Amino acid sequence: MNKPFFTLEQTSTDCKARVGKIITDHGEIPTPIFMPVGTQATVKAMEQRELKELDARIILGNTYHLYLRPGTEVFQSFGGLHKFMNWDRPILTDSGGYQVFSLSANRKLSSEGAMFKSHIDGSTHLFTPEKVVEIQRDLGSDIMMVLDECVDYPSERKYVEDSVKLSKDWAERSLKHFNNTQQLYGHKQFIFAIGQGGMHKDLREDYCGWMSQFDFDGYSIGGLSVGEPAELMYEMTDICTDNLPIDKPRYLMGVGTPQNILESIERGVDMFDCVMPTRNARNGQIFTSTGKINLKNAKYKFSQESPDSYVKSYTSENFSLGYLRHLFMTDEILGYQLATIHNIAFYLWLVRTAREKIISGEFRHWKKEILSVYESKV
Amino acid sequence: MNKPFFTLEQTSTDCKARVGKIITDHGEIPTPIFMPVGTQATVKAMEQRELKELDARIILGNTYHLYLRPGTEVFQSFGGLHKFMNWDRPILTDSGGYQVFSLSANRKLSSEGAMFKSHIDGSTHLFTPEKVVEIQRDLGSDIMMVLDECVDYPSERKYVEDSVKLSKDWAERSLKHFNNTQQLYGHKQFIFAIGQGGMHKDLREDYCGWMSQFDFDGYSIGGLSVGEPAELMYEMTDICTDNLPIDKPRYLMGVGTPQNILESIERGVDMFDCVMPTRNARNGQIFTSTGKINLKNAKYKFSQESPDSYVKSYTSENFSLGYLRHLFMTDEILGYQLATIHNIAFYLWLVRTAREKIISGEFRHWKKEILSVYESKV
Repeated sequence: MNKPFFTLEQTSTDCKARVGKIITDHGEIPTPIFMPVGTQATVKAMEQRELKELDARIILGNTYHLYLRPGTEVFQSFGGLHKFMNWDRPILTDSGGYQVFSLSANRKLSSEGAMFKSHIDGSTHLFTPEKVVEIQRDLGSDIMMVLDECVDYPSERKYVEDSVKLSKDWAERSLKHFNNTQQLYGHKQFIFAIGQGGMHKDLREDYCGWMSQFDFDGYSIGGLSVGEPAELMYEMTDICTDNLPIDKPRYLMGVGTPQNILESIERGVDMFDCVMPTRNARNGQIFTSTGKINLKNAKYKFSQESPDSYVKSYTSENFSLGYLRHLFMTDEILGYQLATIHNIAFYLWLVRTAREKIISGEFRHWKKEILSVYESKV
Repeated sequence: MNKPFFTLEQTSTDCKARVGKIITDHGEIPTPIFMPVGTQATVKAMEQRELKELDARIILGNTYHLYLRPGTEVFQSFGGLHKFMNWDRPILTDSGGYQVFSLSANRKLSSEGAMFKSHIDGSTHLFTPEKVVEIQRDLGSDIMMVLDECVDYPSERKYVEDSVKLSKDWAERSLKHFNNTQQLYGHKQFIFAIGQGGMHKDLREDYCGWMSQFDFDGYSIGGLSVGEPAELMYEMTDICTDNLPIDKPRYLMGVGTPQNILESIERGVDMFDCVMPTRNARNGQIFTSTGKINLKNAKYKFSQESPDSYVKSYTSENFSLGYLRHLFMTDEILGYQLATIHNIAFYLWLVRTAREKIISGEFRHWKKEILSVYESKV
């Protein structure tokens, strides 16, 4: 008998925070988990061995980017994204929908799908729900996403209602096509639905209830962290986790700050991804156990201190704030590398510790402690 | 009794190629050696642990750059460049003279020294021979260089003659100031003179003979690889090594291609540095045992082959030409990292193997083999 894809191991008694595990053919993923973003088959400025050194258990790939470059024919030829980038742990791919809306030009939406022009060369492409499943078959990700429309914030209720209808139709077509097609490379693939509904409680509730009737392997919460206040995001997240199956993993897409992640874990979310640790690193901002640090700050010029005496990484164990500042003041690539390593170390430490604290029953207490230190420095 | 700084271990019977060892307080350096260039206290796109993984035995730092950023007061505060960048193996620093002439604006040369404006903020600075020794005391490099003038190619003989007089005067002043000052951080520092003389045999011969009378720890050959034909460079190198002391290391500054290095080893040079492996890596060109490869070439799109099945590196043992091409086509930092790692691996493999082949008496045969394969692909 196959092991279940997801096992819920424990739920907090004083909040909705939970621990579980996901099992894929590329390995096991303890939850809550943070997934470093590997947009173009690389987590920017990090080597694959460095991701393993920090015990990253799953990374993300972006379907839109990988479809355009290097193209699905390359993945077919290599035997999938894992082999192409030499990463043998799990990979989750998004549907490309978000990038179609945020990056491409002249996109046109119809019930059939999303027509768009490439942001690279202006060429025209059509993403249908079926096409997007097929691209993710070519990529061979362990977990794939359905195509959906991510609506802007704020949006008119009428627009959101129509969008929700479209996304539901696409979700059903995606699942059908997923069930009618097969994995290409010998490992099992799983598919997640994505709940939408803008900032409307009833639409969110309805969408979550609706998608729960289908046998998706997991459920994502989409369309949040799009500019709304954090409190509104938490409110929507709460409604979603209240209306999703207990026995399936919940993935809050594109979120977020350390605070966002801890607040959402408390509300029952299991999986996260965000470009923040990698992107901010390249801008000279690191996340540490005592708050955010802007490495370009003149006050660090002579500092021989570690950027983080608590969260261990190659960076924090070997280099000083003064050296890191110098690397950023001189635009040295090593600055991007070292800041990225530490930020990923920090995010993985955060969810790993959250997991431990849920198990020991101390999650809420610990969260409060972390956030009090953290927010005072932000 | 102190161990000697340099020990000549063996010289070829059929050419001037030689093996030796340099001993510093930060470790032993087998020669011939290639020194990766760490201009601004970092070998661009490489981590310090990666340099050690490839067994880099000594790296270079640039006095001009480090003096301007982060500034000598930072090195004084940290206890030198080694501690600042967390590199506990030997470091050689240049005198900054080359950068004053190639990077700065409005430079004015006098017998006193070189006045120049910073290429970063336009501020005015004066490098005298004494000042440059002091900066290198602050840096705490294991091996320092005297200030000299590197003349352009081609140059009028009269200009070169005057320049040589200036450089000789500066060399004497440098040695005097070196002997009148002390190391700051508890490890011994050594000083090399730099032979000049443009492309004039007699001036080169005279300069080498002249500087050999002083007790410098080693002798550099400067002012080559400045645009002259390779054959002319080899001719000048030959004259220099014929006129330098046998029992001191010879360092050919800023050279060069794999071919240049092997030809110069054959002519009795012990030490090399060059930005070529790191700079070319960032432009997508790698050096391999079968020649140079332009990673952006469309023919590699589907290639699952290693870039180098013979010279081992993290890159060649884990990634394909197709993946590396993708990283360069998408401007990903990981492309710079992986190409740099391989190029440094290749250069270090080249000098390490040269050393082995000199010891086994096969150097000239091996050099011919390597270059025949290599040059056919260039």
